[in-house]
Amino acid sequence: MNTIDHIRLSPAGDGLIILDQSRLPGKAEYLELTTLAEMTEAIQSLRVRGAPALGIFGGFGLYVLAMRTWDRDFYESISRDARVLANARPTAVNLSRGVNRVLAAGLEGPNPARSRESMLREARAILDEDIATCRAISEQGLTLLRDGQCVLTHCNAGPLATSKYGTAIGPLILGAERGMHLRAIADETRPLLQGARLTSYELCRAGVDVTLICDSMAAWAMAQGMVDICFVGCDRVARNGDTANKIGTSAVAILAKHYGIPFYVLGPTSTLDLSCPDGEHIPIELRDPEEIRSAWYREPMAPEGVRCWNPAFDVTPHDLITGIITERGIARPPFEKSLPAL
Amino acid sequence: MNTIDHIRLSPAGDGLIILDQSRLPGKAEYLELTTLAEMTEAIQSLRVRGAPALGIFGGFGLYVLAMRTWDRDFYESISRDARVLANARPTAVNLSRGVNRVLAAGLEGPNPARSRESMLREARAILDEDIATCRAISEQGLTLLRDGQCVLTHCNAGPLATSKYGTAIGPLILGAERGMHLRAIADETRPLLQGARLTSYELCRAGVDVTLICDSMAAWAMAQGMVDICFVGCDRVARNGDTANKIGTSAVAILAKHYGIPFYVLGPTSTLDLSCPDGEHIPIELRDPEEIRSAWYREPMAPEGVRCWNPAFDVTPHDLITGIITERGIARPPFEKSLPAL
Repeated sequence: MNTIDHIRLSPAGDGLIILDQSRLPGKAEYLELTTLAEMTEAIQSLRVRGAPALGIFGGFGLYVLAMRTWDRDFYESISRDARVLANARPTAVNLSRGVNRVLAAGLEGPNPARSRESMLREARAILDEDIATCRAISEQGLTLLRDGQCVLTHCNAGPLATSKYGTAIGPLILGAERGMHLRAIADETRPLLQGARLTSYELCRAGVDVTLICDSMAAWAMAQGMVDICFVGCDRVARNGDTANKIGTSAVAILAKHYGIPFYVLGPTSTLDLSCPDGEHIPIELRDPEEIRSAWYREPMAPEGVRCWNPAFDVTPHDLITGIITERGIARPPFEKSLPAL
Repeated sequence: MNTIDHIRLSPAGDGLIILDQSRLPGKAEYLELTTLAEMTEAIQSLRVRGAPALGIFGGFGLYVLAMRTWDRDFYESISRDARVLANARPTAVNLSRGVNRVLAAGLEGPNPARSRESMLREARAILDEDIATCRAISEQGLTLLRDGQCVLTHCNAGPLATSKYGTAIGPLILGAERGMHLRAIADETRPLLQGARLTSYELCRAGVDVTLICDSMAAWAMAQGMVDICFVGCDRVARNGDTANKIGTSAVAILAKHYGIPFYVLGPTSTLDLSCPDGEHIPIELRDPEEIRSAWYREPMAPEGVRCWNPAFDVTPHDLITGIITERGIARPPFEKSLPAL
């Protein structure tokens, strides 16, 4: 039976223990959540984050709520809880998908005791599937790496956002498990610093030799011959291979092309959106200027009222991408023909 | 007679008034310095910074000390003060050059009263020369801009680091003076945030329409057609045109080339080092990892002990540079033939 450290059941099965990601990297604190209010707060305060991780959280979360529900009105109660939990972050499709899968398993009955068993089985299935997907992606990515090589990555697509391994840094973690000596360069990823706060934390913990740099240093690292290959995650991949990912990803791809360094996108097939013809059709979220001007700082680091432009994502054009790695294999250009149909 | 706001004499001429740059952009505080100890502290605490600005500061500073020195032992006293002041930041050649020019003027005599007059004349000459240089660079750069265009810049090469106008952002400030509508995009310039703290402050103040972005957003801004031209400063230019400047400059140049956007380097001829054949011969300073991990933040944003690589500069290869603008004109490739001999 698969278990993970950052989202797991308490020994009695009536509490959900999570690593509080909002305190990283300063503190590794675990919380036990037992109520619906605690669970929705944990999602909204980013104590748990990452689309696949939210699916796993939602599944086990609903099971814990079912464990704490009286048999009388059981089905009404879990249905109501599921609706609230699934909507704690409406844009995260994995969260509602996970919650609704476990709810559907519970609603099959025939009685609360048997329903609870089915719900636990379904929650574990979601976890198992995500581990299998991440592991397959990591295996595929690892075929591209040789001992001693250095991978540059941007933002965070690691185990905390998923179950195990993650996507973009999965090959590094899998390689470390197998005793390979792989090195990583992590872009800090302004403005939200996922690279500094999460990727470098996860790679240190997995025993991967990681060096943290500012985003602006990637070009100079490449010029110095420090980078063998680039691995990044993805938020959405269009039919032609254009890939939306954290802002700055397209810059890494352009620099990699300039220096002749292979650039790969890693993600589950669930991020492929073959109904979307190309990157022009992917809307880009613009976020709060204060993330640039003042977030994290002791005091604001730019003049009050200065205009900031803060796109959360960018689109890397397909012609800068060497390959797209999913759990089904490595797709190469032209991506229209090579990306797996869903 | 030229005067500037951020380094100027008090009305009686016996104090040096400076804008405390270490408090920017939160506070615009002016300090009056009257003693050698206050002057060296201001340099060491980066209350005054920027190579040309330090030359001007050193010149007027020594004059203020001469105003406050008794006639008895006048020449020994100013010589001793000059030695201390010139060494407050040993690497800044402009500082010692400015101090020593004013000292030499004073030592010509024939008496303290006349010496003080000569010293003031020389200090003013240093200021006048820097203004003329910056203005000429700005005029040259402005010939490349048309109304409504947008300039992307990296780091800070503005008036606070010089006298007036600065170098890379000089054309924008000069254009604004002439009523042109020019726009700027300022990279925040991690890790020391000179773009956020200083460039956006200076451009706002000069009435230039400026937008602040994270360094990682420059590629996406270019992809969106938001950037017409790139202007950057320089710390050292080799004979073949290879240019050392703030880390991240080479990334901007590569992105600009990818998107077909002209990329210009602006600086005084004093930064040309024709004895240096190419960028391979320019040593790059590596700085404290804490600048990436914890500086400015309320708490460290990366795990304790994580390795950071923190080069302060990079070298932009000459073949990515459209032109190099000095006070003598615009040099174009091949730079070996076009850069002005000194």
